[in-house]
Amino acid sequence: MGESVKFLLSEDRMPRSWYNIAADLPAPPPPVLNPGTGQPIGPDDLAPLFPMALIGQEVSADRDIEIPDPVREIYRLWRPSPLYRARRLEALLDTPARIYYKYEGVSPTGSHKPNTAVAQAFYNKEEGTKRLSTETGAGQWGSSLAFAGGLFGLQVDVYMVRISFDQKPYRRALMETYGARCVASPSKETQSGRAILEKDPDSPGSLGIAISEAVEVAAGNDDTKYSLGSVLNHVLLHQTVIGQEAIAQMEMADDYPDVLIGCAGGGSNFAGLAFPFIGEKLRGGRGPRVIAVEPAACPTLTRGSYAYDFGDTAHLTPLVKMHTLGSTFVPAGIHAGGLRYHGMSPLVSHLKELGLIEAEVYHQLECFDAGVQFARAEGIVPAPEATHAVRSAIKEALACKEEGTARTILFNLSGHGNFDMQAYTDYFAGKLEDKAHDEAALGQALSELPQVAAE
Amino acid sequence: MGESVKFLLSEDRMPRSWYNIAADLPAPPPPVLNPGTGQPIGPDDLAPLFPMALIGQEVSADRDIEIPDPVREIYRLWRPSPLYRARRLEALLDTPARIYYKYEGVSPTGSHKPNTAVAQAFYNKEEGTKRLSTETGAGQWGSSLAFAGGLFGLQVDVYMVRISFDQKPYRRALMETYGARCVASPSKETQSGRAILEKDPDSPGSLGIAISEAVEVAAGNDDTKYSLGSVLNHVLLHQTVIGQEAIAQMEMADDYPDVLIGCAGGGSNFAGLAFPFIGEKLRGGRGPRVIAVEPAACPTLTRGSYAYDFGDTAHLTPLVKMHTLGSTFVPAGIHAGGLRYHGMSPLVSHLKELGLIEAEVYHQLECFDAGVQFARAEGIVPAPEATHAVRSAIKEALACKEEGTARTILFNLSGHGNFDMQAYTDYFAGKLEDKAHDEAALGQALSELPQVAAE
Repeated sequence: MGESVKFLLSEDRMPRSWYNIAADLPAPPPPVLNPGTGQPIGPDDLAPLFPMALIGQEVSADRDIEIPDPVREIYRLWRPSPLYRARRLEALLDTPARIYYKYEGVSPTGSHKPNTAVAQAFYNKEEGTKRLSTETGAGQWGSSLAFAGGLFGLQVDVYMVRISFDQKPYRRALMETYGARCVASPSKETQSGRAILEKDPDSPGSLGIAISEAVEVAAGNDDTKYSLGSVLNHVLLHQTVIGQEAIAQMEMADDYPDVLIGCAGGGSNFAGLAFPFIGEKLRGGRGPRVIAVEPAACPTLTRGSYAYDFGDTAHLTPLVKMHTLGSTFVPAGIHAGGLRYHGMSPLVSHLKELGLIEAEVYHQLECFDAGVQFARAEGIVPAPEATHAVRSAIKEALACKEEGTARTILFNLSGHGNFDMQAYTDYFAGKLEDKAHDEAALGQALSELPQVAAE
Repeated sequence: MGESVKFLLSEDRMPRSWYNIAADLPAPPPPVLNPGTGQPIGPDDLAPLFPMALIGQEVSADRDIEIPDPVREIYRLWRPSPLYRARRLEALLDTPARIYYKYEGVSPTGSHKPNTAVAQAFYNKEEGTKRLSTETGAGQWGSSLAFAGGLFGLQVDVYMVRISFDQKPYRRALMETYGARCVASPSKETQSGRAILEKDPDSPGSLGIAISEAVEVAAGNDDTKYSLGSVLNHVLLHQTVIGQEAIAQMEMADDYPDVLIGCAGGGSNFAGLAFPFIGEKLRGGRGPRVIAVEPAACPTLTRGSYAYDFGDTAHLTPLVKMHTLGSTFVPAGIHAGGLRYHGMSPLVSHLKELGLIEAEVYHQLECFDAGVQFARAEGIVPAPEATHAVRSAIKEALACKEEGTARTILFNLSGHGNFDMQAYTDYFAGKLEDKAHDEAALGQALSELPQVAAE
């Protein structure tokens, strides 16, 4: 037998706290603003949407936030997740690079999303919430909240971006298996949805629109709170179990990443892996080069403005400073639905501005090609979102080959593609196209960014 | 934190040999016969279909057969697989029973099938095979051989039962992702397929028909061998890594099963878990009650004859003594495609005759109901085949509740249902029916069993 291919932590080495990068930042990110007054919002402004415990985490400056026991009890169903050395992929690429991947597809829903879904469902249950409303793109988030809500006896209503609703019927079936209700967005159930449908009855939807619908439902119902699968500080916080485990597992492997890679839609799987590593660097330790990978159809970090913007299309959310393509920008209907968001997590955007991370952009065909290479070497079929990270890791490994250097690459394989096989079917049938963003539409959307006096 | 829910073995505790139950049986199973002569067949008769290493394992009397290093290297991608205590399901059922499940869904293709696919691909590669032909029902086997063949650079042609081909397009996409070719069976590519299509152009197919096609292709091409996903001794042998690991994991849990449960189509996942436990009993140790679970649409062990029969519909295989519904019996098109086989592994049949195992039958609706209960409690959506084991385990747990006794139940969760969500969609939509076997068709098929002089 050769050297190990997987590095497993025992249950007792599962992290006991989440890591809050805000505690280590040289400067805090800009405040969230009330769009009406232009002033920073307070906890009370968010209370209709979120339980106080999550609002507290959103603004916390504590470095370590304890994970409640009932959340850890559920994490144990799949955590600690494995870290793999991709020896077969290395051999296939004939590269001197050492490639590792942290695999979050072992969760019940096949992605990293339950890490925060379980935490959010727990805090909501604690504070008396009866129903959660949320949006989902490809369905990874919706199915994860469906799973978590079911465990805590919460009703879950999921507004699923129309194009994904049609492309990925089995994600919907999964949500229903867990007992949730799944509605195509834009829907006729909300003012936000009806307004979009009036303008464009065939709207493919977008995460921005679906967020509007879910927020509207939560704001209008006392027993209902809103739940978001990415972007916000507390969501990224919950994902840091990934990176904390990976640090311990890279030690088991007696190695350390030179390059760390994650795909970025709202930023949560990327941050989950990267923040604990960046935190070590911020505290004076070593740290890898860190790359966020985006789709060419929605290049938020690489082509967006760093500006105050709404998180949703109907402008029901507060204003956050982030890299944004403009809240009216509707990305092309690529299969990586989870990456089709006009904005980016404020924390990730802030790190980009501080020069602590880089961003790369790839087209979907080269990503699916990388996904197929990975599947044939390592067995696991990556989710379309995760193929972006695979593509970047392969590029880096081939650069190592070209240079004759043996760098260590670590990427987040944030989810498997078992529910996304239609995408691979379309890819093999030659039905997929590379879709870059529409330059004119981007210019228009950016021209409509809100004016903020404070800036 | 409460007590453990999962029991993980480190890589170095992965079994080093397969367990061959033939070494411990009080009497050997009846010989395989040449249908022409009625005499026992020898290795040469099987040589056109299988590599000699596998033929040797088929007839071996050695208790422990070493697992080759290259096979163990690949097993390490997902093995040892976890054993879980289903604490949430126990709580949901309010039962004093302790329910454990061995979870084989962690393999790349989501079932136990790669345990033998990798071994078969390895031995074929060693002996110069260029192409493997095989059949598949629901697609778990076909995708597993596609995966394994890809790793060893073998071309893989999969004849997929028509009804599953149509019901489960994403399994097909998975096979293609691994580089295999997938053909709906009955097909026009073989004489066996064309003969069926002439009689019934709308034939839903069956495992028996698909086996005929794959065997015909292997027999007619020198560079091609046939690969079977269940039934044969060497296939069951390879699956015994499951039970060997489970014995060690039950020790970790400081518990021992009173009842052991597996679903049975051809018998391989059932045998994989059960044989190592039964072996301990045969060698004078303790042993659990052992239950094989069948679908009402295809009740081989419970309603079949124990007789010599062909393994396929076109009668290209040797004759094996087994429980059979008759090789011309075509089971109703239930979603548990992997359980739609007219026969049963000769070894499992033999154990049934020896009184070492029992059999139970369930309808598909009660199985899907059990699958949904399990998914909501434990997070994992079971494959339709595996819901049969879940159903039996829940029945046993409820019996414990009724009796006020705390038995220990262990079942094999042989695969997840990620690629079978259409089945759950149909179930929720009320489109599924309970389909028992057709009594008249069964009588007819049994009347057509081959006459064997030796009997």
